Amino acid sequence: MDKKVDAESVAKSEQNAMNAITIDCVVFGFDEGSLEVLLVQHAEGISKGKWGLPGGWIYKKESTDNAAHRLLNELTGLDNIYLEQLKAFGDPDRFPLRRVITIGYYALVKREDYNIKAGFTASDAKWYKINSIPDLIYDHNEILSYSIQNLRNRVRQAPIGFNLLPEKFTLLQLMHLYEEILGIEMDKSNFRRKILHMKLLVALDEKQQDVSHRAAKLYKFDPDIYKKLTEKGFNFEF
Amino acid sequence: MDKKVDAESVAKSEQNAMNAITIDCVVFGFDEGSLEVLLVQHAEGISKGKWGLPGGWIYKKESTDNAAHRLLNELTGLDNIYLEQLKAFGDPDRFPLRRVITIGYYALVKREDYNIKAGFTASDAKWYKINSIPDLIYDHNEILSYSIQNLRNRVRQAPIGFNLLPEKFTLLQLMHLYEEILGIEMDKSNFRRKILHMKLLVALDEKQQDVSHRAAKLYKFDPDIYKKLTEKGFNFEF
Repeated sequence: MDKKVDAESVAKSEQNAMNAITIDCVVFGFDEGSLEVLLVQHAEGISKGKWGLPGGWIYKKESTDNAAHRLLNELTGLDNIYLEQLKAFGDPDRFPLRRVITIGYYALVKREDYNIKAGFTASDAKWYKINSIPDLIYDHNEILSYSIQNLRNRVRQAPIGFNLLPEKFTLLQLMHLYEEILGIEMDKSNFRRKILHMKLLVALDEKQQDVSHRAAKLYKFDPDIYKKLTEKGFNFEF
Repeated sequence: MDKKVDAESVAKSEQNAMNAITIDCVVFGFDEGSLEVLLVQHAEGISKGKWGLPGGWIYKKESTDNAAHRLLNELTGLDNIYLEQLKAFGDPDRFPLRRVITIGYYALVKREDYNIKAGFTASDAKWYKINSIPDLIYDHNEILSYSIQNLRNRVRQAPIGFNLLPEKFTLLQLMHLYEEILGIEMDKSNFRRKILHMKLLVALDEKQQDVSHRAAKLYKFDPDIYKKLTEKGFNFEF
């Protein structure tokens, strides 16, 4: 850990912070076909020993966006991540000690690109598979559910999530990414037909190497179409 | 005004409120072909006499959603409006007196369905055309710009805004709604071809009545397709 967690540093940090509003980050990771979320175990306070989304207080002199990046870095070691604001969660009873509103942020990363290291008020930080999430502190299970639903809506409307694949990939790999995020099973030939119809992919003159099954054709994204679809959106119905 | 604005009622109201977080509402109205936004003139405090978005402090015991509805009602008389959360605006310098984060809400209504009545801390409330917005308090011009951009993205992806038209309408009326929200001019035959291709509209066996020009055919929405597109989204490129 870079920072020693002691009562003094925690108290000092809270003194400089706004006392009625926090940030919580939902970082989704994709790894070998499975969708995961980054959780931290609290090292102190009323939630000691429990798991939750990485988050905390906003300093009086930093923007909410900067607070989200700082907190994520302090608690998990993650840096340089594209975090997007999700929404504010404002139920009056969501935090047990007093009225606190939290602003949710979220990100979608390729898990293998990042090293996790628990820090500051976190005693542990790790990736949990979406279908085996423990009981989280406060309303964090609810925030996570909302984020998953939001992610599902978004992958149907824009090619986000495609950056979770290697540069060259098979149609089956792409389908598995969609299946995992949407939590559904898809029909292979139906998927193939629809995705090729979008003209988003460029078929390469290459096949998979070193696989035990019949090698599949590799594809990459057409950068122009990808950019256009990211800005304009599409509607991907399965 | 239903409530008398005096120093006591304002002080009492602030005492029961969270002191670092507010709500601001962007209510878009559509009326006779023009897009407008509802603004209020402040009757007291540092922003007295200036115009801004209807908003204010959140009570300690109400949800953010309830606060948005209450504030809008207190300041403008509007009630029973579908308000949706936009995002939180968290620049550390956005409010001059101290650090305050605001949560934006927004709505899109048929202007003629509502009566506006300034109340509580507002000395006036009125609709302003999108292209003649005055200098607003704090970062409200910025919040409004963000909301307009958000609205433009959304009308391209789902049939929101269609409830701003009468039940039976001409293709030209529908095109003018899109033109006004998107701030662009469209090509009539192009629009006609694309919108009919979506099969969202049902052509009626009726024409406009009492018009000086050649009466145009009337359409209505196919409720099933409308519902499906609202949930699933579409991509409407012009």
